[in-house]
Amino acid sequence: MSNSPPRGFPPEEFEARTAKVQAEMDQAGLSGLLLMTEAEVRYFSGFHTLFWQSPTRPWFLFIPAQGKPIAVIPEIGALLMRQTWIDDIRTWPAPNPGDDGISLLTELLSPLASQSASIGVLKGHETALRMPLGDYEHLIAALPGLQIKDATGLVRSLRMVKSPREIEKLSHICAIGSRIFERVPDFARAGTALDEVFRAFRRAALDVGADDVPYLVGGADQGGYRDVISPPSARPLQAGDILMLDSGATWDGYFCDFDRNFAITQADDLSRRAYDVLWRATEAGLAAARPGTTCRELFHTMQSVIAQMDSAGGDVGRLGHGLGMQLTEWPSHAAFDDTVIQENMVLTLEPSLSYGDGRIMVHEENIVIRASGAELLTSRAAPELPVI
Amino acid sequence: MSNSPPRGFPPEEFEARTAKVQAEMDQAGLSGLLLMTEAEVRYFSGFHTLFWQSPTRPWFLFIPAQGKPIAVIPEIGALLMRQTWIDDIRTWPAPNPGDDGISLLTELLSPLASQSASIGVLKGHETALRMPLGDYEHLIAALPGLQIKDATGLVRSLRMVKSPREIEKLSHICAIGSRIFERVPDFARAGTALDEVFRAFRRAALDVGADDVPYLVGGADQGGYRDVISPPSARPLQAGDILMLDSGATWDGYFCDFDRNFAITQADDLSRRAYDVLWRATEAGLAAARPGTTCRELFHTMQSVIAQMDSAGGDVGRLGHGLGMQLTEWPSHAAFDDTVIQENMVLTLEPSLSYGDGRIMVHEENIVIRASGAELLTSRAAPELPVI
Repeated sequence: MSNSPPRGFPPEEFEARTAKVQAEMDQAGLSGLLLMTEAEVRYFSGFHTLFWQSPTRPWFLFIPAQGKPIAVIPEIGALLMRQTWIDDIRTWPAPNPGDDGISLLTELLSPLASQSASIGVLKGHETALRMPLGDYEHLIAALPGLQIKDATGLVRSLRMVKSPREIEKLSHICAIGSRIFERVPDFARAGTALDEVFRAFRRAALDVGADDVPYLVGGADQGGYRDVISPPSARPLQAGDILMLDSGATWDGYFCDFDRNFAITQADDLSRRAYDVLWRATEAGLAAARPGTTCRELFHTMQSVIAQMDSAGGDVGRLGHGLGMQLTEWPSHAAFDDTVIQENMVLTLEPSLSYGDGRIMVHEENIVIRASGAELLTSRAAPELPVI
Repeated sequence: MSNSPPRGFPPEEFEARTAKVQAEMDQAGLSGLLLMTEAEVRYFSGFHTLFWQSPTRPWFLFIPAQGKPIAVIPEIGALLMRQTWIDDIRTWPAPNPGDDGISLLTELLSPLASQSASIGVLKGHETALRMPLGDYEHLIAALPGLQIKDATGLVRSLRMVKSPREIEKLSHICAIGSRIFERVPDFARAGTALDEVFRAFRRAALDVGADDVPYLVGGADQGGYRDVISPPSARPLQAGDILMLDSGATWDGYFCDFDRNFAITQADDLSRRAYDVLWRATEAGLAAARPGTTCRELFHTMQSVIAQMDSAGGDVGRLGHGLGMQLTEWPSHAAFDDTVIQENMVLTLEPSLSYGDGRIMVHEENIVIRASGAELLTSRAAPELPVI
């Protein structure tokens, strides 16, 4: 696309991220950080590949107290890793069930273990252990003295606030997402099967510049859909259906995540009203989402509008979240989350409600937080339920 | 597509899988199996959604010694899970960092803990712990007496051998993959940027019936490519390039995984020779892949042909693997893997070699093992390097 930002990041981006995390590690008394998940390895190294789709091989990035991160990775990734800013790349011929990087990690971490030093791993909310649990247990057992601490808060606080270059990428993919949704009336018509609508959506995404659409869910049913995470059925759209499409498209490894609702041929009054309530809940969220507000306050602001129609709220668990290299990231707009919203966070506002006979409706917009408040990255949904 | 097999599986498929695993659990002295990864949850329940793209929420499926599996999942998934054969569905309003399913799991597992019973979790090769490690540690600590054993071997042995309905789906997506590759000469021409080739490949995949292309990598360079896991550059294809595209397209949650090589305008002699060696290594693999052969033997059979040009072999670590709900599955065609090949395994044959000045070439075909030997699921690559 002619107006695309550059792909990738210059080395100073990774230097800055690493310097920030090392300052926080110092404060937390951590002599290192052992990372193994796609987003974290990419965040600190720039290593970007779809090869993570294969569950076979573990990949490790170790951030020492000072200096550049150290990659401990399968040999198949060496050439790509050498194109990043990382210098110290240690490889083994993977897969090797008997020793998938464990000797290399043991060698790397032994000096720290002999000092009874502490290292951080991600053990907290929204994280996973992307290596065999048995290997992790063996590694820890081979390093007596090494203290393992949860570094989730530290990585979370860093990744939640986006850099200008990250915001540029997120802005680009959100604009692409808006252009995809503009085309929905061209292909979502009465008589078209929902799975064909999905296929046309993916085609439109490629046409307007998305790299990929890793996430696409939705629903359509008479007077409202009932589920928001299903794959598409082959049922043809019918007059009176409410159609929702929710997409996580990507560009250069960054996601948009928003949805749009449409009525096919005609809209019932209850769905119109649900739409209006959610549109206004989003407006309230847009006004409230500014530096200094907590996610809990943002949640209650949106929830108080939703309560005009649904006192219980939907069952989706929260009313929005962080957005970036992953479809959903920290924080959560939920009663449990007291995260203070900061400038340069990129967030979704995702109010939902239940109505009628087990129907659900979900709205979603993507925003970036500026000093003055929320700035939309998506083209704002129409104020009234659009009829195709 | 008019010739598509049915989507999903009838309940008897899940009954059979569950009965088989319960028989193996009985032999292994396991009173339950706690699963939390997408493929395993789907394999035993039929729960199929792209929502796993969001890392926020954990999902659990518990297989008791007798009876149907029990789902312990976020409320947002309840409606979709109720459409499967599962009856016992326990939900919580997720995300909830303070208790993301842990109380529900503790309640479920406490009776087993009080009997000092053993349960299985996946701790072995090619597995991950898809829940926060901290939550896992809290769960185990809350269940004194409960014995945790590695059940990787048990699940592996079951999933490696595909059912007729699974083979039908895999055959369908491999045929779709072959139709995509037939179109490559239409859009991969000198002057076309590699990222545009990728985009056209994804479009072609949708046109010929794929649901999605979660995995697409490749390379192109003068006289041979150097890397097989990179995202595409914007460099235009040039006369004398060797282009490789390697794709994991999906249909109904099942993958194909194979690649094709092309020369742009003209082919150099060394690349022609590398192609010929790999084509013959694949032929040797096709002849050797039959019930009773080990993966190690299959590896050595292909490696002995590859050694005609490259005594070290490539750096990709193995010469093929299992294929199914994941892009790569157990087993590995590698010297370490003594798995005995069985009827109804679906496998890739993926010989690779290094040549020239740091070039690499990879071939790949997908097969199903019949009583009489290997049956190709992909349209066999041309015996000579195709020139576009």
